[in-house]
Amino acid sequence: MKPGPSNTPGSIAPDRPDRPGWGERGLIAAIRQRLPAAPAWLVAGPGDDAAVVEPERGALELLTTDAVVEGVHFDRRFSSLADVGWKALAVNLSDIAAMGGTPRVALLSLGLPSAITPADVDALVGGFLALAAEARVTLAGGNITRSPGPLWVDVTVTGFARRRHVLLRGGAKAGEDLYVTGEVGSAAAGLGWLRAGGADVSSAPVGIAACAERHRRPQPRVRIGALLGRNRAASACMDLSDGLADAVRQLAQASGVGARVDATALPIAAAGRDWFRARGEDPASSAAAGGDDYELLFAVPRRGRSRLATVIRQARGVPITKIGVLTPEPDLVLVQAGAETPLPEGFTHLG
Amino acid sequence: MKPGPSNTPGSIAPDRPDRPGWGERGLIAAIRQRLPAAPAWLVAGPGDDAAVVEPERGALELLTTDAVVEGVHFDRRFSSLADVGWKALAVNLSDIAAMGGTPRVALLSLGLPSAITPADVDALVGGFLALAAEARVTLAGGNITRSPGPLWVDVTVTGFARRRHVLLRGGAKAGEDLYVTGEVGSAAAGLGWLRAGGADVSSAPVGIAACAERHRRPQPRVRIGALLGRNRAASACMDLSDGLADAVRQLAQASGVGARVDATALPIAAAGRDWFRARGEDPASSAAAGGDDYELLFAVPRRGRSRLATVIRQARGVPITKIGVLTPEPDLVLVQAGAETPLPEGFTHLG
Repeated sequence: MKPGPSNTPGSIAPDRPDRPGWGERGLIAAIRQRLPAAPAWLVAGPGDDAAVVEPERGALELLTTDAVVEGVHFDRRFSSLADVGWKALAVNLSDIAAMGGTPRVALLSLGLPSAITPADVDALVGGFLALAAEARVTLAGGNITRSPGPLWVDVTVTGFARRRHVLLRGGAKAGEDLYVTGEVGSAAAGLGWLRAGGADVSSAPVGIAACAERHRRPQPRVRIGALLGRNRAASACMDLSDGLADAVRQLAQASGVGARVDATALPIAAAGRDWFRARGEDPASSAAAGGDDYELLFAVPRRGRSRLATVIRQARGVPITKIGVLTPEPDLVLVQAGAETPLPEGFTHLG
Repeated sequence: MKPGPSNTPGSIAPDRPDRPGWGERGLIAAIRQRLPAAPAWLVAGPGDDAAVVEPERGALELLTTDAVVEGVHFDRRFSSLADVGWKALAVNLSDIAAMGGTPRVALLSLGLPSAITPADVDALVGGFLALAAEARVTLAGGNITRSPGPLWVDVTVTGFARRRHVLLRGGAKAGEDLYVTGEVGSAAAGLGWLRAGGADVSSAPVGIAACAERHRRPQPRVRIGALLGRNRAASACMDLSDGLADAVRQLAQASGVGARVDATALPIAAAGRDWFRARGEDPASSAAAGGDDYELLFAVPRRGRSRLATVIRQARGVPITKIGVLTPEPDLVLVQAGAETPLPEGFTHLG
């Protein structure tokens, strides 16, 4: 972690002795003080031009980067800065899990509007480090710059997996079963409730606050992704960042197959189901179209079924649900009450 | 490379059949089409949840991330989008060079304001890929999101170096010589000229347009950094992103020494010297304080001198200049005409 490149018209703020802790270097020093003891494989952490890491032996490296942007991915009325820090890491951990890998190193790049205070940055970093500790990921470096626009948090995560354990999107075949972890639609229902003026938990519909928490602090399936890879239970995998329907479409297209998803099988939380129904929506369609579920979608061939049973036993209570099958025909259909409808488009972009 | 996490209020733009090439996925597809053939060690490139890479054998991995932000690091009146793409990669390559490493993999994360067109993105990616080709770096993934504020380009680069070739900031000792690559102050002078209404090259002072080009398209010292590491010529190294004075201060402080810099030895281009003088500034002080020089500052112990001669022979004409010595006393001084003045502060942040 170090200050950004030379700031042409001006930096995030000068390092001023009268405002200790502010300025790029003051913030970086404060972040470094919060870091836990570094693992032995971190040869040089934050503070030099680059982090220096001993690679994991005998493994391939996985690399992913994803940003969350104020006004695009989060709304500060609904998410605390600790939530934002958590989510910025979560979306990247979810990508490593979707590859069957184990995350290891994170880099944190911040674009800070002038209204952000050192306490805000501290809260954001706190949320980030809380998830990093849970997932055993090491913050090894990063960058801080001023943003003349919104707050953005851009994270890079590297991880590792043995070559034969890597899960790509395109490895599935017709006839294989489709599974999903956890619940779908909860984050969309929770965000809907927040936008409708929710947040008064005392008068909230039962369970909807938990859905809102899924939007604020998604739980990336780090453990299950690594188990799916190591046990070779799945032939293809991806995460649901843009919603279940979008993930089914992409996994099927990358694999050159179609899919039939059973609407009645979808693991939709009761509160989510109630929320969609109360708005006159079909719960299965809305849950499948909703984004922000950082669950894993994966295909299981017949020979993987007993290995999947092993994964399910080790999943520590996270549900793993069969939701459909892959088909030789390229169509993507949602089957409900005997009727077939096209799978909804992915997460609805508002443009 | 893949679309960002689910966009809560809206994405950069919908993928619309009436606007081919626009939308996250359209842009990503267009970028993928531009990529050169992937090296054998890239097991899976853009298109999955994460890139998959075979690590370099027997080497440590270096990781760095740096963003350039419109209105902070560049001004679109002075820099084309191709320049911006180039510079976003250059600042990261400079960090890997400063560690004595060889860059290998890049991830490109874009925050795009709504006024950006697909042609703009194409130009930006073109500048990025032009430097990637020169530096033999592979674009392995990234992310595209909408930005409700300025354009920002956040890049992560990984590289490698053998353990005994890694150059940290803190390895120097008193009595060692300080060297710098290339020229200092050119980018600051060039930006000054652009801001003063320059850009009419026909009436420009001789050489100032070349200085402006140093601001727009810095040349990271990729080859020299790797040579310094491999030849074990330097005891410590860092790049000049925040200016020479700042780099001397940081290298000296990390190494627990002071420094005496010889003002007359500084490699300041004639056009830069003239520019500073015409504004009533002391060229040495202004060049040392100016930012955006992506040169390398390094310390050479007595035993490294003959190895440095080897590096200079292989530097393909890039000057490598001795500018001072490290001292046991912690002071940081600029020696000029027999007088000693404190080294200027680093790049002046405007706040």
